[in-house]
Amino acid sequence: MKKLQTTGPLVVIGGAEDKKDDCAILRRFVRLAGGGKARVLVLTVASQFPDEVGAEYLDVFRRLGVKQVQALDVRVREQAGEPGLVEAIEQATAVFFTGGEQFRITNLLGGTAADQALHRRHEQGLVLGGTSAGAAMMSGTMIVEGRSEATPRVGNVRIGPGMEFMRGVIIDQHFGQRGRSGRLLSALAQYPHQLGIGIDEDTALVVRGDEFRVIGCGAVTVFDGGAATYNDVLEVGHHGNVAICGLRLHVLTAGFSFDLQTRTPRPPAPHPPEAAAGTQHETRDDQVSPRAEPLS
Amino acid sequence: MKKLQTTGPLVVIGGAEDKKDDCAILRRFVRLAGGGKARVLVLTVASQFPDEVGAEYLDVFRRLGVKQVQALDVRVREQAGEPGLVEAIEQATAVFFTGGEQFRITNLLGGTAADQALHRRHEQGLVLGGTSAGAAMMSGTMIVEGRSEATPRVGNVRIGPGMEFMRGVIIDQHFGQRGRSGRLLSALAQYPHQLGIGIDEDTALVVRGDEFRVIGCGAVTVFDGGAATYNDVLEVGHHGNVAICGLRLHVLTAGFSFDLQTRTPRPPAPHPPEAAAGTQHETRDDQVSPRAEPLS
Repeated sequence: MKKLQTTGPLVVIGGAEDKKDDCAILRRFVRLAGGGKARVLVLTVASQFPDEVGAEYLDVFRRLGVKQVQALDVRVREQAGEPGLVEAIEQATAVFFTGGEQFRITNLLGGTAADQALHRRHEQGLVLGGTSAGAAMMSGTMIVEGRSEATPRVGNVRIGPGMEFMRGVIIDQHFGQRGRSGRLLSALAQYPHQLGIGIDEDTALVVRGDEFRVIGCGAVTVFDGGAATYNDVLEVGHHGNVAICGLRLHVLTAGFSFDLQTRTPRPPAPHPPEAAAGTQHETRDDQVSPRAEPLS
Repeated sequence: MKKLQTTGPLVVIGGAEDKKDDCAILRRFVRLAGGGKARVLVLTVASQFPDEVGAEYLDVFRRLGVKQVQALDVRVREQAGEPGLVEAIEQATAVFFTGGEQFRITNLLGGTAADQALHRRHEQGLVLGGTSAGAAMMSGTMIVEGRSEATPRVGNVRIGPGMEFMRGVIIDQHFGQRGRSGRLLSALAQYPHQLGIGIDEDTALVVRGDEFRVIGCGAVTVFDGGAATYNDVLEVGHHGNVAICGLRLHVLTAGFSFDLQTRTPRPPAPHPPEAAAGTQHETRDDQVSPRAEPLS
């Protein structure tokens, strides 16, 4: 297993985070960024609609009390080397990546002066946030694209290097909502040393060093392929179904922590019988009320 | 863990099995039923369109060489006690349950003379097949209905007793295609002593005694909740997200066997390095060529 290196905190969001009501996840991002004193830079590089998406995030961050917030866009690689963008990264306390296509982020920013500035500042404590495509690109190994609701196969997923803010993991987003278990397993079967992390919508990891904590409305599903006793990727090729045996699986909800080094989940409170009644709920401050919907 | 009891062979299909080309799964069912000498009874009780569905299966079974095949339907419980149906079950070498709603099967057949005849004959070797709803009802514990593409929650799934031809398991169908990982985990978190078995479309288990073998185009995903070290179902209630840690997960493809007593998967061939080159493929006779589709 490679060293998992994360210096500044990361807020890695599975997409579709609340921007209208509580805004619990974005509020957490703002708090980490310095609250009223935050200087937030929104990067819309992933999006096909940078103006609309940028305006939406400017609006929500202002509502959350951020006085200094700007949105910048990159359409061609030259723009990622411009002094204005690099200067904005240098001055920011936090950078937020919107959704769109993750391959746009790595393709347009990867290796540029902006990329270097992001990493340098992140190692100095810059807060990074990203949703959907902006979450996918955080990892060392990125799912570029792939088929949802599918049987695990090598050919069902295209993989490439991410922006490497969170190493040793493969992140998938909109996880429960788009039925992406097979897609993430398609990636993990090939690279079982990576930890597979599937993040539901309106749900996020807050990563600090070698630990993440779950916040938000949904679940974070962790696949530990290191525990696998068998896979037949080398035999079945690109379009054959892949078998994998003995994976370890964790479904984590708000308040859970996870140690990325030991690959161990930790529940929100000391586990009964020792724990006093009530403490379980007090530590569940991250829990956003889940929405009850009728069965379908 | 309860005793897993299966006497006659079962063919448990995840829905949408091929009925036009190779018909590999239905062909296997017919072979188990006696081939040209089979007497197949199709039960359309689950379906809202019994005439159309019945005619479709009569046609495919005839094409597969079955000379004696009939379709019978049950709309009200009285019909399930009629001598004609019971006699047909007594005379059949195999009974096939079509798709539809699994709750119709348990509600209309459960406890009737037909149910008793099915169990008595099954213990004597009657072959049983079922697809989709007809697969779901095979298990001791049945998912009556539930939400696909969802975060695991107790309230996301309704569970009841199945027809109990295969005990100790909870079966889910259309598994990969409908993104039902969260739905099956919603059930397993409540009943971790059951083995969760998610069957993809055009994929089936052939169950003999305490072992099943995978056939068809997709995968069978096995969740072993017995290995789980933690779940918080007792604390989070009906509409809270459920956390589960330490589940064991297996993704099995055609040719794999699984021991239901020891909960151990067995790959299609002796594993390298001992295995001679080529034997791996020879034992893969169950593999139906997977269809390659473009990434989306």
